[in-house]
Amino acid sequence: MIKEHEQIDDLQLKGLKLIQDRTLFCFGMDAVLLSNFSKIKEKSSVIDLGTGNGILPMLLYGKYKASKIVGLEIVKKNSDIAKRNVILNKAEKIIEIINEDIKNVKSVFEKGKFDYVITNPPYKKRNSGLININEEKAIAKHEIKCTLEDVISMTSYLLKDLGVIYMVNRPERLADSIELMRKYKIEPKVIKFVQPYSNKKPNLFLISGVKYGKVFLNVETNLIIREQNGEYTKEVLAMYGIERGE
Amino acid sequence: MIKEHEQIDDLQLKGLKLIQDRTLFCFGMDAVLLSNFSKIKEKSSVIDLGTGNGILPMLLYGKYKASKIVGLEIVKKNSDIAKRNVILNKAEKIIEIINEDIKNVKSVFEKGKFDYVITNPPYKKRNSGLININEEKAIAKHEIKCTLEDVISMTSYLLKDLGVIYMVNRPERLADSIELMRKYKIEPKVIKFVQPYSNKKPNLFLISGVKYGKVFLNVETNLIIREQNGEYTKEVLAMYGIERGE
Repeated sequence: MIKEHEQIDDLQLKGLKLIQDRTLFCFGMDAVLLSNFSKIKEKSSVIDLGTGNGILPMLLYGKYKASKIVGLEIVKKNSDIAKRNVILNKAEKIIEIINEDIKNVKSVFEKGKFDYVITNPPYKKRNSGLININEEKAIAKHEIKCTLEDVISMTSYLLKDLGVIYMVNRPERLADSIELMRKYKIEPKVIKFVQPYSNKKPNLFLISGVKYGKVFLNVETNLIIREQNGEYTKEVLAMYGIERGE
Repeated sequence: MIKEHEQIDDLQLKGLKLIQDRTLFCFGMDAVLLSNFSKIKEKSSVIDLGTGNGILPMLLYGKYKASKIVGLEIVKKNSDIAKRNVILNKAEKIIEIINEDIKNVKSVFEKGKFDYVITNPPYKKRNSGLININEEKAIAKHEIKCTLEDVISMTSYLLKDLGVIYMVNRPERLADSIELMRKYKIEPKVIKFVQPYSNKKPNLFLISGVKYGKVFLNVETNLIIREQNGEYTKEVLAMYGIERGE
């Protein structure tokens, strides 16, 4: 089940485990935040665009009762790990991993097949910042294989009318995200910024949007990740099901 | 100098005073926040779109050394008060109040005349919420005489290349603001949300944008207006030049 450079981590969620390759992109707080921000109804269908090792389908599988969760991943090495993660967690009836380019979804799925799209897309523009020399890591972080516009236009194709997208991204991409959602008929509904500490500016934001949704945007209170002493805040511990005494 | 229903308020800024009509729209925290968010260079030119009783030109006059500040106001009753405010504060050399419809700016000004546009536009869409039965108050709050698109398209006309807009609005209009700025070639640069209390969600946001600016958006830490005990926070007191002991 496990290959060289790989490890199995405990997801601290209903006994679920995750194989990760230490040389590839390993999941971080953003996946946990996004799975908690997402509200998935029973018996619904979900697709994760750019699933990596399958962390988001696995977290949603642990939290919700969707009838179908698809994880789409372009990097073969990643989708292979994601497929083993499905088997490891006996989730084959619900989760399906597909090794495909997001730009080809029209040849794989009919229009309007999904109730939800969830995505943790590459944050950085192609020509910004240092590109990781590890190609698979670079694909996860930079718009090498797909742009934000690819992700959002394909989201609009995949969603049913009134279907919902949940996305995490960096504040510097907020204007791009909103402009593109509007361009592809997805109305931004809720934005929640995430700050590493209460006195630091946001370094992530979570956004939901509804295809052909009514216009009304709600900006929620910011989520703070850590107290000044470095410990997780109550809000973050609650995501892991941990209550802290005062 | 003063008419029925009017009062003179002390702006607590370099001895400046402001005539306000109690039956019209009186200035609030948003004007103070917007004037503090704005950074106006010496000898620059500024126009305030929808100046009301002239509060924003007066606050900028007290804080910065612009060479020209124009206040544009469609409601005659308001522009008359604004003109008297200019005289009351002996600011005639810098501030000019013009009673004109924002949609007519092309007949009044050449393209690209201003370094800065500052605006506290009507927040609410025409068909949303209760409309004030006082027509002048309704014009200040609802998109009756002009829409956000009018304000931003005229801003783009009025600004020099690399000129800056500073605007305050409600979070529910964030997507509209960003989409319209991009549409009219104004790149959003800084967003700062404002919360009434630390545990309440934002009820205002401040945004700056640069005409033909480079793409990079900075979301700052939120400004909190009041402590839990109802007192103003240090940050707000600092705007009024007050330091609070700990």
